[in-house]
Amino acid sequence: MISRRTGTLRVLGVDPGLTRCGVGVVDVAADRSASLVHVGVVRSDPGMPIEQRLAAIAAGIRAVVDEHGPAVIAVERVFAQHNRESVMGTAQASGIALLVAGERGLPAATHTPTEVKAAITGYGQADKRQVQTMVARVLRLDELPQPADAADALALALCHAWRGGAPAAASSSALTPAQRAWADAERLARR
Amino acid sequence: MISRRTGTLRVLGVDPGLTRCGVGVVDVAADRSASLVHVGVVRSDPGMPIEQRLAAIAAGIRAVVDEHGPAVIAVERVFAQHNRESVMGTAQASGIALLVAGERGLPAATHTPTEVKAAITGYGQADKRQVQTMVARVLRLDELPQPADAADALALALCHAWRGGAPAAASSSALTPAQRAWADAERLARR
Repeated sequence: MISRRTGTLRVLGVDPGLTRCGVGVVDVAADRSASLVHVGVVRSDPGMPIEQRLAAIAAGIRAVVDEHGPAVIAVERVFAQHNRESVMGTAQASGIALLVAGERGLPAATHTPTEVKAAITGYGQADKRQVQTMVARVLRLDELPQPADAADALALALCHAWRGGAPAAASSSALTPAQRAWADAERLARR
Repeated sequence: MISRRTGTLRVLGVDPGLTRCGVGVVDVAADRSASLVHVGVVRSDPGMPIEQRLAAIAAGIRAVVDEHGPAVIAVERVFAQHNRESVMGTAQASGIALLVAGERGLPAATHTPTEVKAAITGYGQADKRQVQTMVARVLRLDELPQPADAADALALALCHAWRGGAPAAASSSALTPAQRAWADAERLARR
């Protein structure tokens, strides 16, 4: 899963949704530093039949995988807290993202929103703006990643790499204060 | 959607599930009479990673589609009434079935369990045994279709054809009493 040539891990993060599916690809080094490879949103027309919408999402995710060659796909874990049509659509879109991984022979992982927020900001209840701000800082972007789905996809990808997708950081010098706090909390939790 | 040659509609019904995904193919004539084409269960190993399980389900459903050439795929509609992992897995499997339809250029439809029970037995609260018994009678099977997932898939396929996938029945003479009661109820509901 780690490129022998560069020592970096390339992760595709997917924020699943039927109408808007955020996709973000990052390269994460062993020292936890990261760089942006690709970010975008795969869309499907709400007026189309569900089977065509899911096919459009699958095609969009496959295109990103084939163009950027991630080593792993990280997908937001969906919870069925409400019996809403949108939750089921989100679950179906997440299934499509996981399927694409399976069909391309890539490992997949799921992370909860709380895990992502904690990994990115050090605080599991962080709001969207805090996550976007930290993603922009980590990736050295001049502007906050837009739209929110795209930012969430990048956050997922970073979360996955930092939570163990990449080997343990050799040094904590590249961490932001929030990342260092999270790394410390992780170490404490493992004791 | 109706075969010009035979006047029958071939429907693939899918009872979605991660571990066991029922698949049933039936031919339904304009007079609502039906015959069994194929029935089975696509399985995935609970010990495998989710992305490989979904890929196995997609491959299994595609194989049925490619071998039997249905004109439409009917999938049970999943509700998120409980925040359980199994519900999300079922939703993901249903998304895979719908995706296969979209990728093969086939229309898809979803029906609720209540709609299926009502269409098959005339009673939306029918139990599994009643549904299996009626499916066996309609398809002139010597034994009840087994396992339950397979029977549910056949019921879904029949439900879809009877609820409007096939043109309105020219005559009600081929209907069982339960089917006739349902057809009458449908007519009343439309007034």
